[in-house]
Amino acid sequence: MTEKFSFTLHATDGKARTGVIHTPRGEIRTPAFMPVGTAGTVKAMMPESVAATGADILLGNTYHLMLRPTAERIDRLGGLHKFMNWPKPILTDSGGFQVMSLSGLRKLTEEGVTFASHVDGSKHFLSPERSMEIQRLLGSDIVMAFDECPALPADETRVAESMRLSMRWAQRSRDAFGDRPGHALFGIMQGGVTPELRAESAEKLTEIGFDGYAVGGLAVGEGQEAMFGVLDYAPGFLPEDRPRYLMGVGKPDDIVGAVERGIDMMDCVLPSRSGRTGQAWTRRGQVNIKNARHMDDPRPLDEHCTCPACRNYSRAYLHHVFRAGEMISGMLLTWHNLHYYQELMQGLRDAIAAGRLSAFVTEFHALRAEGDIEPL
Amino acid sequence: MTEKFSFTLHATDGKARTGVIHTPRGEIRTPAFMPVGTAGTVKAMMPESVAATGADILLGNTYHLMLRPTAERIDRLGGLHKFMNWPKPILTDSGGFQVMSLSGLRKLTEEGVTFASHVDGSKHFLSPERSMEIQRLLGSDIVMAFDECPALPADETRVAESMRLSMRWAQRSRDAFGDRPGHALFGIMQGGVTPELRAESAEKLTEIGFDGYAVGGLAVGEGQEAMFGVLDYAPGFLPEDRPRYLMGVGKPDDIVGAVERGIDMMDCVLPSRSGRTGQAWTRRGQVNIKNARHMDDPRPLDEHCTCPACRNYSRAYLHHVFRAGEMISGMLLTWHNLHYYQELMQGLRDAIAAGRLSAFVTEFHALRAEGDIEPL
Repeated sequence: MTEKFSFTLHATDGKARTGVIHTPRGEIRTPAFMPVGTAGTVKAMMPESVAATGADILLGNTYHLMLRPTAERIDRLGGLHKFMNWPKPILTDSGGFQVMSLSGLRKLTEEGVTFASHVDGSKHFLSPERSMEIQRLLGSDIVMAFDECPALPADETRVAESMRLSMRWAQRSRDAFGDRPGHALFGIMQGGVTPELRAESAEKLTEIGFDGYAVGGLAVGEGQEAMFGVLDYAPGFLPEDRPRYLMGVGKPDDIVGAVERGIDMMDCVLPSRSGRTGQAWTRRGQVNIKNARHMDDPRPLDEHCTCPACRNYSRAYLHHVFRAGEMISGMLLTWHNLHYYQELMQGLRDAIAAGRLSAFVTEFHALRAEGDIEPL
Repeated sequence: MTEKFSFTLHATDGKARTGVIHTPRGEIRTPAFMPVGTAGTVKAMMPESVAATGADILLGNTYHLMLRPTAERIDRLGGLHKFMNWPKPILTDSGGFQVMSLSGLRKLTEEGVTFASHVDGSKHFLSPERSMEIQRLLGSDIVMAFDECPALPADETRVAESMRLSMRWAQRSRDAFGDRPGHALFGIMQGGVTPELRAESAEKLTEIGFDGYAVGGLAVGEGQEAMFGVLDYAPGFLPEDRPRYLMGVGKPDDIVGAVERGIDMMDCVLPSRSGRTGQAWTRRGQVNIKNARHMDDPRPLDEHCTCPACRNYSRAYLHHVFRAGEMISGMLLTWHNLHYYQELMQGLRDAIAAGRLSAFVTEFHALRAEGDIEPL
């Protein structure tokens, strides 16, 4: 692959942007929502169905894949795209966040992190260099720099130290990544909720130079207000001509607020995880399909939705298969949720392109305020 | 629906038969294998995918559906076809077998069976009349007469008493079913492994008159030899111009042997249940995808199979997702197994039509004797 990775900005509306990321594996329309395919599968979905929802790219987790089936094995089998039957672009995270949130027995040094696998307790090591190697073996199209994410709550001194370590690791990630035409390396801004630290981080990353920039260290339980507080200024510290990625976000209203503040890419397990626990997301907010009020309801989850769950099934059916513990429950609700998320992204892209984002957002909130439709 | 239910026999080869059952909801090519959609879903499959494997009809379980979500609710929602998004024919069993095998606290009288639900312990009653009512509420295309199935082991006296009770219930089922153009009622032959009892049962059923006839009381743990022993003579007791249905069978070699002996229809949970536990069925027998020998194997389960699991994934991937507990494991292996079963049925139909069933069966056994292909 020698074709270049590039980003074309098509239109802006306030701080919001819409454009296209070009990769040798296909175009990514922005703002983009990336479904999460943690262990080589978007849970409960066939990859063709993920593509059918409108997803241009999905996210794979370095941490999970390095432990099982291992990056070396995936490489021998022809790379992650072939392994999981997803020919479109894949972004892989660096593993840093999952080491912090999932593994046991961590030991952090300047060199990297030693940790115990949550699968079998075996010992592993991740560093900027090893993370770059793993993501190369996986065949990732968009590679994330290896960073450190302090556990919350953390005081400003700890956040500053962690950010500066992440910036040294960003340089090492850049050096280890080398020159790989058609593949992109994104840096990750840290600095918590302190504008000066965010600015320092952005300046350092821009100096190193990346193909895109992530806003890291949010979506770790700080709440929407604090997150929007950072997003009110942090994206402005980053180069305008590169994609801006908000990691691990979020609920539909988080996504809308982030796009309003200049974010181009997001990912979250929420639509797929919710789908497996009987939670559906619709234009009117969240619907708990477990609720007995759906038991006799012949209507679809959302009469305007064109996903298979809404086209072909009643709420009564979705309620029944959830209660009966049938796999089709998670399959249909996950499909619906991913479809809804992608429809929301298309709505945002169209609204930005037409310069009517403000009206779109007003309607988005108004419909949610009405709440889910009442049973007959 | 006023279109008639009918059966056209196209060709025979020895005792084996191939033909078409016509119903208002579509044609059923025989010999037919019916996937089992117990509780309103073929587990781990979208109904469109079940149809894509080549299934013309599926089976629904009266026992499960009467308990949850209830036949009355399904009727209010427009019937089982609409409820589960399966527009093609559905056969429903009578509930008798599941009451015997799944429920607790049974009480059997001439009138019917009182039993406790395996879901919540609530008390329920099934009789020929109630079973006919439930199957009508479900909207079943092929309704099964309500019968009693003695638990094994059972002596000949108990088997004879049970068979005669089932014959009285067959008459009550026929009376309660009434005249429903486009819908069929099948009687169920009982009599264990005693030819005289089988003959008596068949004579009684033929006298009552049904649209099709099932061979019941097999596939209850008696083994293939005993089953084939009964199938060597029992189908011959039944009218030639009506479909013959062997309930709850079976493994691929059971199916081949049953078709050789004149059976037209079968159903079994095996392909779907196996798929969820990491077992695949191929032309070369059973493959346990959990086995470590698949961990690095880039080849498909079966290089000649055209199902999505074989077209798009390696054994290494199927092994990985099973080990990781991912839902796509059950989704892909179930799809493969159902595809393999339907391909086998198509092979049998073609072979019978061409008068080369014997050669087909010889090759079927020869490939299985070779066993699964060795890893590279």
